[in-house]
Amino acid sequence: PDHAATAAVAVRQATLTKPPGSLGTLETLVGWLAAWQRRPMPQMERVEILVFAGNHGVVAQGVSPYPASVTAQMVANFSAGGAAINQLAAVAGAVLRVVPVSLDRPTDDLSQAPAMDEANFLDAVQVGHASVRPGTDLLCLGEMGIGNTTAAAALAAALQGGDPGDWVGRGTGLDDAGLRHKQAVVAAALQRHRAVLGDPLQVARCLGGRELAALLGAMLAARQLGVPVLLDGYVCTAAVAPLAHLAAGGLSHGWLAHVSAEPGHRRLAAALGLSPLLDLGLRLGEGSGAALAVPLLRAALACHAGMASFADAGVDGPAANGPR
Amino acid sequence: PDHAATAAVAVRQATLTKPPGSLGTLETLVGWLAAWQRRPMPQMERVEILVFAGNHGVVAQGVSPYPASVTAQMVANFSAGGAAINQLAAVAGAVLRVVPVSLDRPTDDLSQAPAMDEANFLDAVQVGHASVRPGTDLLCLGEMGIGNTTAAAALAAALQGGDPGDWVGRGTGLDDAGLRHKQAVVAAALQRHRAVLGDPLQVARCLGGRELAALLGAMLAARQLGVPVLLDGYVCTAAVAPLAHLAAGGLSHGWLAHVSAEPGHRRLAAALGLSPLLDLGLRLGEGSGAALAVPLLRAALACHAGMASFADAGVDGPAANGPR
Repeated sequence: PDHAATAAVAVRQATLTKPPGSLGTLETLVGWLAAWQRRPMPQMERVEILVFAGNHGVVAQGVSPYPASVTAQMVANFSAGGAAINQLAAVAGAVLRVVPVSLDRPTDDLSQAPAMDEANFLDAVQVGHASVRPGTDLLCLGEMGIGNTTAAAALAAALQGGDPGDWVGRGTGLDDAGLRHKQAVVAAALQRHRAVLGDPLQVARCLGGRELAALLGAMLAARQLGVPVLLDGYVCTAAVAPLAHLAAGGLSHGWLAHVSAEPGHRRLAAALGLSPLLDLGLRLGEGSGAALAVPLLRAALACHAGMASFADAGVDGPAANGPR
Repeated sequence: PDHAATAAVAVRQATLTKPPGSLGTLETLVGWLAAWQRRPMPQMERVEILVFAGNHGVVAQGVSPYPASVTAQMVANFSAGGAAINQLAAVAGAVLRVVPVSLDRPTDDLSQAPAMDEANFLDAVQVGHASVRPGTDLLCLGEMGIGNTTAAAALAAALQGGDPGDWVGRGTGLDDAGLRHKQAVVAAALQRHRAVLGDPLQVARCLGGRELAALLGAMLAARQLGVPVLLDGYVCTAAVAPLAHLAAGGLSHGWLAHVSAEPGHRRLAAALGLSPLLDLGLRLGEGSGAALAVPLLRAALACHAGMASFADAGVDGPAANGPR
């Protein structure tokens, strides 16, 4: 990151017609954009939303109310413009790109075997890595994959520890019995892969999924290309969490766009030190929360770039000798 | 409110290609817009931001780091397009109107006398009431007035009770000594006006300000005209709080856009049962938090209006016999 760019942002902020710090997180966001875009006046011209889709062998265990066929059907819905993320991308002024990752080849059932072998895992990481375009001003990451909150819960439990059941939620809408079953499946997966729990990348391979691996690859590419990232919900956060375990600050080019209704997400965000911009009870995925946060960054930047200074506007500053 | 319109929103939501409830608060917002716009498909074509400005006699007590001259200077800055709210209005796609309320006549010092007599109070209420245009789809309320967080704290303390000091914050940036002094001024005001504390409108007259009275009038007019309102920060919330004390549900056509860094605001929002959409540490006023939340409502409505149904998109619903 370019700390000089962040410092230049702070210098300009201090001249603008508002009490110091009164735009709160909006001011911090501009400094963060500047740091990763490596320029003192960041921009938001090229905003992209990347949604990776994958299928999951663990769906055979009955961890989702929806059939696996929905993954490809929703990808078609994205193409036709009928999904939530299409509408949210339009409001955000962002380009949406959907990248199906071998939908015809579900991962192996992670409660029974490694989700992917090394070659398949690296292929998926590479798909994600190659999807990030140089010159992107802001990247929103999202995903679609029936069964993938099970992978997210398994990943989070493997990386962060604690009772596996605490990381499991209702996903798209499990009832109580379904939730208990999903908890048992995740616990079995943790037990099955106990030998690799100390290795973040092996955890991503054995307990993740193709779209999660692609998210990890995209997050890496964004780091290398100087592209700040808005992270979406539980699956997205779990997918990139191995990078935080591989290196301190490994996620610092990302900002958590929102915290979802899936209880494991709040827990994981706290564990990773990520502060969400929004907390609106979303639990959809598709990058929906990330897209929803884009206007906040546009607003932050608009204030920074467009406001008048005290001097130019002829507005008095604080009284020299204090208020009294 | 039109409950049938809200019910129609829920019926449509259930057909859209997403798990039920997965857009969280966005779904609730659409039902709320429908209820107050009184139509099953709400719209967001005419979004207005009304910023009322006033001056405060209590500034003579040294409750703000900024001189009272800044109120008029900032109104000029609004006209010139140089303030934060100008930039935020543009991002929100909203029309900004600034209404100075007798800036050349500050209120009387509320720690020494009633801030306004009956005639001046009603005049200011009427200015606000007349400012709301029929046919507005969404109204954002905001304010500007050096010294007005002192009025807000006094109003909140008078209406909600408790230790007056708990309602007092640093406003635009008081130091510790300034904060203690402001607390003492508010406590003196409460003591001075103890005879009227049981009457919400007398509290607004004696402890408020002209721009606060105008906000109250605008909130009333919005109710009568079927205009949903986004409330901004501490001053705005305190200004309309008397309506909640006059009638249960008196603020239900308003949604709190954000909770500010001023600690009294979180306390007041909780006491009034208002849930903020955003919590980003803003403490600027000007309607900035309300404007910032507008894209969230645009996003909510875009999803509701634009998404495909399961049937139209050919997406399978939950398995008929559950996941297993």
